[in-house]
Amino acid sequence: MTETRPAPWGETTVVGKPRPRVDGFERVSGRAVYAMDVTFPDLLHAAIVRCPHAHARVRKVDTSKAERMPGVRAVLTGGSPGANLPWHFGEKGPLSLLFDPHCRHEGEEVAAVAADTPQQAKDAARAVAVEYEELPFVVDYADALKPGAPAVHDSGNRNGEPDKYERGDVAKGFAEAEVVVERTFKTPCEIHTPMEPHGSVAKWDGGRLTVWDTNQGVFDIRSGLAQWLQMPLTRVRVISKYMGGGFGSKLEPGKYTVIAALLARKTGRPVRCFLSREESFLCVGNRPPNTLTLKAGAKKDGTLLALQLTGLGTSGAYPDGSGAGYLVTDLYSCPNVRTEETDVFINAGKSRAFRAPGFPQCAWALEQVMDELAEKLGIDPVELRLKNVPTVSQRRKNQPFTSTGLARCLREGAEAFGWKAARATPRGGGAVVRGVGVAAGMWGWEGEPRSTIIVKYAADGSVDLGMGASDIGTGTKTVMAMVVAEELGAPLDRIQIDHADTGTTPSAVSSGGSQTTHVNAPAVRAAALDVKRQLLEMAAEQLKVEATSLSLEEGEIVAAGPPEAKLALKDLKSLQEQQVVVGVGHRHPHPKDKIGLPFVAHFAEVEVDTRTGEVRVLRLLGAHDSGRVMYPLGYENQVFGGMTMGIGFAMTEERRLDPNTGRMVNANWHDYKLPTALDVPAKPVCLPIDPHDTEINTVGAKGIGEPATIPTAAAIANAVHHATGLRITEPSINPVQMAQKLWARR
Amino acid sequence: MTETRPAPWGETTVVGKPRPRVDGFERVSGRAVYAMDVTFPDLLHAAIVRCPHAHARVRKVDTSKAERMPGVRAVLTGGSPGANLPWHFGEKGPLSLLFDPHCRHEGEEVAAVAADTPQQAKDAARAVAVEYEELPFVVDYADALKPGAPAVHDSGNRNGEPDKYERGDVAKGFAEAEVVVERTFKTPCEIHTPMEPHGSVAKWDGGRLTVWDTNQGVFDIRSGLAQWLQMPLTRVRVISKYMGGGFGSKLEPGKYTVIAALLARKTGRPVRCFLSREESFLCVGNRPPNTLTLKAGAKKDGTLLALQLTGLGTSGAYPDGSGAGYLVTDLYSCPNVRTEETDVFINAGKSRAFRAPGFPQCAWALEQVMDELAEKLGIDPVELRLKNVPTVSQRRKNQPFTSTGLARCLREGAEAFGWKAARATPRGGGAVVRGVGVAAGMWGWEGEPRSTIIVKYAADGSVDLGMGASDIGTGTKTVMAMVVAEELGAPLDRIQIDHADTGTTPSAVSSGGSQTTHVNAPAVRAAALDVKRQLLEMAAEQLKVEATSLSLEEGEIVAAGPPEAKLALKDLKSLQEQQVVVGVGHRHPHPKDKIGLPFVAHFAEVEVDTRTGEVRVLRLLGAHDSGRVMYPLGYENQVFGGMTMGIGFAMTEERRLDPNTGRMVNANWHDYKLPTALDVPAKPVCLPIDPHDTEINTVGAKGIGEPATIPTAAAIANAVHHATGLRITEPSINPVQMAQKLWARR
Repeated sequence: MTETRPAPWGETTVVGKPRPRVDGFERVSGRAVYAMDVTFPDLLHAAIVRCPHAHARVRKVDTSKAERMPGVRAVLTGGSPGANLPWHFGEKGPLSLLFDPHCRHEGEEVAAVAADTPQQAKDAARAVAVEYEELPFVVDYADALKPGAPAVHDSGNRNGEPDKYERGDVAKGFAEAEVVVERTFKTPCEIHTPMEPHGSVAKWDGGRLTVWDTNQGVFDIRSGLAQWLQMPLTRVRVISKYMGGGFGSKLEPGKYTVIAALLARKTGRPVRCFLSREESFLCVGNRPPNTLTLKAGAKKDGTLLALQLTGLGTSGAYPDGSGAGYLVTDLYSCPNVRTEETDVFINAGKSRAFRAPGFPQCAWALEQVMDELAEKLGIDPVELRLKNVPTVSQRRKNQPFTSTGLARCLREGAEAFGWKAARATPRGGGAVVRGVGVAAGMWGWEGEPRSTIIVKYAADGSVDLGMGASDIGTGTKTVMAMVVAEELGAPLDRIQIDHADTGTTPSAVSSGGSQTTHVNAPAVRAAALDVKRQLLEMAAEQLKVEATSLSLEEGEIVAAGPPEAKLALKDLKSLQEQQVVVGVGHRHPHPKDKIGLPFVAHFAEVEVDTRTGEVRVLRLLGAHDSGRVMYPLGYENQVFGGMTMGIGFAMTEERRLDPNTGRMVNANWHDYKLPTALDVPAKPVCLPIDPHDTEINTVGAKGIGEPATIPTAAAIANAVHHATGLRITEPSINPVQMAQKLWARR
Repeated sequence: MTETRPAPWGETTVVGKPRPRVDGFERVSGRAVYAMDVTFPDLLHAAIVRCPHAHARVRKVDTSKAERMPGVRAVLTGGSPGANLPWHFGEKGPLSLLFDPHCRHEGEEVAAVAADTPQQAKDAARAVAVEYEELPFVVDYADALKPGAPAVHDSGNRNGEPDKYERGDVAKGFAEAEVVVERTFKTPCEIHTPMEPHGSVAKWDGGRLTVWDTNQGVFDIRSGLAQWLQMPLTRVRVISKYMGGGFGSKLEPGKYTVIAALLARKTGRPVRCFLSREESFLCVGNRPPNTLTLKAGAKKDGTLLALQLTGLGTSGAYPDGSGAGYLVTDLYSCPNVRTEETDVFINAGKSRAFRAPGFPQCAWALEQVMDELAEKLGIDPVELRLKNVPTVSQRRKNQPFTSTGLARCLREGAEAFGWKAARATPRGGGAVVRGVGVAAGMWGWEGEPRSTIIVKYAADGSVDLGMGASDIGTGTKTVMAMVVAEELGAPLDRIQIDHADTGTTPSAVSSGGSQTTHVNAPAVRAAALDVKRQLLEMAAEQLKVEATSLSLEEGEIVAAGPPEAKLALKDLKSLQEQQVVVGVGHRHPHPKDKIGLPFVAHFAEVEVDTRTGEVRVLRLLGAHDSGRVMYPLGYENQVFGGMTMGIGFAMTEERRLDPNTGRMVNANWHDYKLPTALDVPAKPVCLPIDPHDTEINTVGAKGIGEPATIPTAAAIANAVHHATGLRITEPSINPVQMAQKLWARR
């Protein structure tokens, strides 16, 4: 199964050049068909009956009134035959049911209705009479382990044993340290709330289920559905051609998908089930809130000696994991490190992976502690970080990084930002003060080196690219078309892409974990090279020359000679006879003895009005080592989007649970504040360090999606500290908190 | 590009066994989605304005009234910008335009309308005011070459030079012959008139056109559309998942498809354009009518010495070819053969390939002449044919046939039919007489050995088969699933098929020419074997044994040992890591020095009421050498369907053109008579000779679709002659003709 690994690219002619998206027209014109747009003449619409309580037991479900309502075609409850499937959580097995009578958070699924129109479905869902026994609840994760706290699960509120990591001798490290800083930080529970809500359209054709779904990985969704519905993989077809944001919340199948499938099977008609905005706030994930106590010790010269993290977090009512310790263990060289993190259950919606799970939280703590350390040591914060840049992954048995651009991110970022001058400039003596801050980060996952790609080369030199991966809005289709264009000399408008369809494309990993480009692009390249090899062999046979003397250019084969020769595709007999050349490519494995990960440094400048507490982010610069920049437009989009999310994390976003009712009080876009155009700097700066990592894979790229959001919030907090001297340990950095803190010290 | 050719199958466990169709449920339940069923919320409906005259020039088209009618979204005429594309005919280049002002037959396209509903479109089409200058016409092909005949094309009415073939010395052959027979035959113009009319739904997504179409080969349709619309192949997607019959008339793209595409582009909305039954009689093909004068000479022992055919036919108003001489040149051993055939233009719809183009016509003449020869020689008709069975193709440089089952078809067919007894039985002395007849045939095309197949094997052992070929109702999907099941041990219900979609499947030849099974099945087998090889290599690596000691059974790898071992797929690490194994297979080339073609003998028994002229076909038996029977149900369907079509050709079907107006007078299912259940024998017999042709390809199958209809009509005519002594040279064998002939000799 081993394929020869092709040599890395040198200079490229298409890859890395500024090109518009291949699907730009469809996206901006409204022609793109999203899952919600899929329709059929006999389409039914589903609505889900959800528990309104934070914690309750369903005593009785009376569907008789709903069933008699106009347009209603089916009602499903836990009592419906075959409906109450066990609900799995990864490898943890079933801890719940599709319609579990024990509702462990507000919004849990109790019943579902399919009707001719969305309105009829909603009306009927409201008419399902559910008798609940309300139970005591716990929504504050700090309370969950207290004696007498209400139990979310019969087994208690502890999601397994605490997660521990240790290297060196932390006690000794702190004993030897000349400066020690210790501080406790809190992070908010953020909701993904993508533009496009979660949902599916399900349709049965005989024994085959087709699901049009908004997700980040059709093959993982297929696996989940096949498991729940006990079907062969190839009999479940999942399609996700366009999607309007997921940020990690669309990596796992939702109950809405299974409900749509069951209602479709029951009615013999296709069923659409999409969540409302309010439902999506409650039921399809969040970034777990954490409390992180971080202690750091260093020598006077800034060398880190010991780091210790103690964390508590919650993934909600079901297991998902709230770990946030990675950066403490790997971002900086440090001989002695210990982390211990506890995850607890509360009566709230389960978390899901959220753009760099755990990392912005950890950066919030670590990078503020580094800032404080720098201050205590009298070392410039950039210099302190540079002092501790790692060359090996201490977390992973000291394996070297294939490339560590962190130092370049810090140095070149500082240079481009005008760090030294800004840092030296007085903060302003009046009511409005300014400050600059820096924070660093890295991403912690190499991705799964698993991608199979099929490239079909047609008789006229136009190309079909078959790729399982989803384009979650990041431009994956464009990147992969560029890779094909690079190798096969086909212009982008002659490359057609079939993607994210388990029925027609080969398997692919989900688009998450910043792996999409660097996992898929090498496989696309391999498939294109497989095509090229076959074409050149065909031509070599026809021209009676060695294939190695031939090259493929747009529309023709060129023989270097002597004698020089050109062969138009239309004259390439074997191609014209066969009409298509199929190339199959795989992602080769990661290097065995090295680790390839992206690094980042963000720089922020803020302005604080000390009278009102208002904070404005004036400038943001993201310097990234994500390997080769494949597609500049998408790369910049990622950086700007990531930094904007970092502003939300630092300054505006937080799920609020009412301690009296356990219910979310801001489950809508009015009360849950996303950053808007007015909250972001007018001209954020994207500074790609752009080293071509020739070791990690055959295209030289690393991930960009997640690094782009990791240190932003911490950089802003450090800038606020620089401006005001205030250390903000708990978001949000909003006028209420700022005013309280500013006025308190008057 | 050479792949090792696998050994031919011996005994098979799935292939050749009686199994229901894999898509049987969809077909009989009405769930199958045909092109006509494809719909969109904003779908528009097209109607075409057609010339009502046999020959006319369009002087003026006034669309102003139509454009103002309710629901009308677009009107296209020859004057619309970009609409009037040159219309190609194979390699003959453009001889016409999409909307040609010179209308050469009734039904030619003049304009088209798209509207919100089909009714609105039809109303608006009627409201397009067209001013025609009527021209003199010719609709009788015997008149077309007469001096002063109206010219269909400016270049005249001759479609190229006559088609000639000659071997040996025909004059010498006839001089040496002891018995000579010469007779002139005529054949009817049949209309394909499949259950499902012709039509397309066209939709643009940005620069990509998707067409849901009813056709026999999506890749050929794609090539045509790409040529007309000047687009890269991969930007045109043609899909044909189910289709309700074509019989050759759906091999080429129709103007309706291009019209739908242009209207869709103009309106920015998807457009459906389907022909009415009446339109389909006029404009989408027919079997050309022929006049064939055949002369045969033999020795007294029955050895054929000379054959000479002079033919005239017409492919209508545009070039297609009406050749009907093949059987004369290759069905029997004969040293001296000459054929000369002339094709002329008339003012009628163009012909298209029709199940065994030219062959039933030729069999009609040749097999009646053989019958007459046998009578004159006093030799049994079966014995006369056996005397002249060929072992080499004299037409093709005396290359041997890979297998010639003709003798077995004749002998075993005669045996099963009870030929000798029936032939010896008195015909009946009363008003109702009986007779039996035989006729032989062969098919003349090996098919194009071009098929590329992709098989994807998922982690749970379920399979996706990606195949470009259409299943035109013959059961191709079932055959190919059986081939996969045979090689991969996967049960049929775990094999999912994606087919006939140029966007997602590899290239394939069209399903026509009796090539579908024997061209595609070897490629499917090769792709499945490619998957198996990879799986066994993966297992060998894991088990540390030789791959050759391993076999793949359902859900597990079995090591023959020692030591014996089993490895479940879920434990096959590389498969689980990779999640999919992709196999690519090609059809290997035909043997270079041999020809592989199917042979057939049909036996018929008829009853003639000499008072009324009514003829009933009592019995039909089809004995076929089509190589291995892959899928018995489909094979029988083909034989019964073919024989039924033969009844139509002999007894009921004929296009009638009014000599006064040049218009077709029976362009509907009431006046154009298709054979019905009452016209066919209650129990037709399918007798597969079933030799496994191990030389022609790796599955041993030859074609069955076309041989099944070639000799039926001739066998019926010969039976009528046996019953009545009347030689019927012109169909239809209907009561009118029979009564005239029977009464004439009283």
